[in-house]
Amino acid sequence: MSRYYTFNAADAVEYARQFGGVDDPLSLITADEIGDGNLNLVFKIRDTQGISRVIVKQALPYVRCVGESWPLTIDRSRIEAETLIVHYEHCPQHTARVIHHDPELAVMVQEDLSDYEIWRGELVKGKYYPQAASQLGEYLAQSLFHTSDLYQNAEHKKSEVGRFLNPELCLITEDLFFTDPYIEHERNCYDAALQPTVDELRADISLRIAVGDLKQRFLSNAEALLHGDVHSGSIFVAEGRLKVIDAEFGFYGPIGFDPGSAMGNLLLNYCGLPGLVATREAADGREQRLQDLRDLWLSFSERFLQLARDKTQDLAFKIPGYAEHYLKHIWHDAVGYCGSELIRRTIGFSNVADLKNIADQEMRHECQRHALSLGQWLIITAPQIDDIEGLIARIRQNG
Amino acid sequence: MSRYYTFNAADAVEYARQFGGVDDPLSLITADEIGDGNLNLVFKIRDTQGISRVIVKQALPYVRCVGESWPLTIDRSRIEAETLIVHYEHCPQHTARVIHHDPELAVMVQEDLSDYEIWRGELVKGKYYPQAASQLGEYLAQSLFHTSDLYQNAEHKKSEVGRFLNPELCLITEDLFFTDPYIEHERNCYDAALQPTVDELRADISLRIAVGDLKQRFLSNAEALLHGDVHSGSIFVAEGRLKVIDAEFGFYGPIGFDPGSAMGNLLLNYCGLPGLVATREAADGREQRLQDLRDLWLSFSERFLQLARDKTQDLAFKIPGYAEHYLKHIWHDAVGYCGSELIRRTIGFSNVADLKNIADQEMRHECQRHALSLGQWLIITAPQIDDIEGLIARIRQNG
Repeated sequence: MSRYYTFNAADAVEYARQFGGVDDPLSLITADEIGDGNLNLVFKIRDTQGISRVIVKQALPYVRCVGESWPLTIDRSRIEAETLIVHYEHCPQHTARVIHHDPELAVMVQEDLSDYEIWRGELVKGKYYPQAASQLGEYLAQSLFHTSDLYQNAEHKKSEVGRFLNPELCLITEDLFFTDPYIEHERNCYDAALQPTVDELRADISLRIAVGDLKQRFLSNAEALLHGDVHSGSIFVAEGRLKVIDAEFGFYGPIGFDPGSAMGNLLLNYCGLPGLVATREAADGREQRLQDLRDLWLSFSERFLQLARDKTQDLAFKIPGYAEHYLKHIWHDAVGYCGSELIRRTIGFSNVADLKNIADQEMRHECQRHALSLGQWLIITAPQIDDIEGLIARIRQNG
Repeated sequence: MSRYYTFNAADAVEYARQFGGVDDPLSLITADEIGDGNLNLVFKIRDTQGISRVIVKQALPYVRCVGESWPLTIDRSRIEAETLIVHYEHCPQHTARVIHHDPELAVMVQEDLSDYEIWRGELVKGKYYPQAASQLGEYLAQSLFHTSDLYQNAEHKKSEVGRFLNPELCLITEDLFFTDPYIEHERNCYDAALQPTVDELRADISLRIAVGDLKQRFLSNAEALLHGDVHSGSIFVAEGRLKVIDAEFGFYGPIGFDPGSAMGNLLLNYCGLPGLVATREAADGREQRLQDLRDLWLSFSERFLQLARDKTQDLAFKIPGYAEHYLKHIWHDAVGYCGSELIRRTIGFSNVADLKNIADQEMRHECQRHALSLGQWLIITAPQIDDIEGLIARIRQNG
C-alpha cells in the first residue's frame, strides 16, 4: 500500500522541518501554496520572520486542465528529483538543488529561489539578462556531455536509460510537439484567423516528413539525460545567475532537443517582441535575443568540445575531429527541434505569453505567423544550416 | 540463492522430458553435447530410434577463450529466449521456436533443426541456396518493423527497451566491432603480412570518425529489437527454408545494424570465394553473392514498406513518403555497419572461415586485403551510396 497522501500547508511545514536541512527547523512556521495547482502543489516554507527558506513540491496524481482531470503518474516526481540530482552533480551553479526527495510521497524539498525571477516573465517585459543565455549553454553542455556516450561508461549508461524511461511524460511531448499541431486536435489552441496559415503548414509534406524524423529521433535516440522541458518558464534568472528547475520530463533522448527547445523559446520572444513593447525597445530586444541565441550556442558548443577534449576516454571517440563531427549532428537536430518548439507553442496546447499576451489582435496574428513560418523554415532547412552565424543571418533577412 | 547448476547429459534429457513438449517424453533417452563449449552447452536430445527431437541449450557463466576464462552474465540466456520469442511472434517461419525457457537455470528448449545446415559452412563450400537471402530479408523486415516506432506503441516500446538493455553482450559488440580493430589490441587476430594495410586503415581519420559515428549510433539509437548477431553462422538453411538462431545479443539498437551485418557476411564470402573454390566456380559464386545481396535488401525493404503502409498507426509516421524516407536512413546505416563487419571479421577477434580457410597464403592475404578495402570504402562512402544497385555496381567495379 502506498504512503501517498496529498499535503496540506501544515504537512508541508512539518516535512520541511524534518527534511529541509535547515539549522533551525522549528523556525519554519508557514507554507504558501504558489503552484498553479494543475499538476503539482508547490509550497514556499517561511520562517518566523516571513523569509522563504525552502520549497516543498508534491506531484498530484492528475493534471487539471480544460475542466477535466487527466491521470498522470506521480513517478514524475522521482524523475524530476533524480534528473536534477544528476545534473546538479555536473553543474551545481545552474541546477536547482534537491535537498531531499521521497518517491512514494512524490515530494521533494528544493532550495529556495525567491530572489530569482522566471525568465519568460522578464523576457516578455523586455528585461535583459546579458549572462543568462551563456549560463544556460553552460548548464546544457555540462549536463548533456556528462551523461552522453562521449563520457559515460556504456554499461552504466544503459542502466541509467532504464532508470529514466519516463514513458508517460515522454508521451506528452511526443503528442504535443510532433503530432497534434499538424492535425486537427482538440488540444490545439489558436485564433480562427490563423486557420489558412495552419492549413498551409499541414499541407506541406516535406515539413511533415521532417517532423516525423524529429519524432522518431525523440522516440529512439537515447543520447544523454535530457532535462526534456527547457523553456524560459522553467528557468530562473537573477543578476548574473541562472538556475534550471522542473525536470519531470527528464529522460535519455537526442541531445539536440534541449538546446533546440531553449533556442525556440528565445525565438518565440524574438517573434513576439514587436507586439509586446514599444517599437524602439522591440528592435533592441530583438538584437538582444539574437545575441542570446549566439551566446547560448557558442557557450554550449565550446564547453562541450572542451569537455570532450579533456574527458572523453573511449578510444573510438577520441579521434581528432570526432567531437566536432558529433556536435554538427547535435546542431542539426537542435535547429529542427527549435523549429518544432516555435510551431507547437504558437498553435498547440501550450501557448506562450510571448505571443499570447500581445493585446492588439492584428499584431498578434502577424507575430504568430512569423513564428510559424520561421519554425517551418527551420525544420525543413535544418540539414542545410551550417552554423549559428548562418542561422542568425537568415533570421535577420526574414525580418 | 540461485537454482543454477551446470547440466550434464542426464540433466538435459530429464529437462527435455519435462519441458520439451513432446508427446512421448519417456522416449527421449540420450543427449549429445554439440556446442563448442566456449559459451554454452548445447545438447541434442535423441529418442529411442536415435532421432534428434529437441535442443537443450544452457549458458555457461563464462567464456572460455584464448586459454582463459572470461566471466559473462547468464542473463544472456533470458535475452536470447525472449528475443527469439518476440521475433517468432512476428516471423514464425524464419525464427527458431523456443519451447520453454528458465532464466534462472539459463536454459532453454528449442525446436530441433537437424535437417538444416549452417549457412556459413554451405557458403564456404560454394553451395547455393537461392531463396535464403530473400527469406532472411523477410525475417529482418518482420522482426524489425514490428518492434520499431513505426509499429509499436511508445509506452510499450520503452518498457521493452528496459527489458532488453543487455549491457554485457552489447559491450562485446561495442569493443569488437568499433574499437579493437582500429587500435593495437591483443584480441585482434591477423597475419603479420597484413600489418601495412592495417596501419593504413588505422591512419585513415575519415574512416575512424565514421566508425565513431557507427559506434555512437549503436550505443544510443534504440530503434527496434535487433537480433544483434546476424551472421551466416547463426543462420540455418535447408532447401527452400531458413531459420535464425542464437539471439543472445538481442537489444534495442539501430535497425541498419542487422541487415548491415547480414550484408557484410555475404560480402565476406564474396571476397573469400576466389581462395575457397575453383576459378570458374568462384566467378559463379560471386555472382550468386551479389544476387543474394540484392535479394536480401529488396525483400527486406519491400516488406518493410508494405508493413508500414498496412500497419503504421502513428499519424506522424503515416505521411506519404515518410516510410521511404526512414528506410533511406536504415539503408545508409546498413551500408556502414556492413563495412564494419567486413573489417572486424578480417582483422578482429572473430575471424570467419570464408577468409581464414583459404589455404594458399598469398591468395588469403589478397582476399583479406580486398575485404578490408571494401569495408573501408563502404564505411566512408555510406552516405553517398544511394541504393542497392549503386552498391553492387561499385563492388563489381572494384573486382
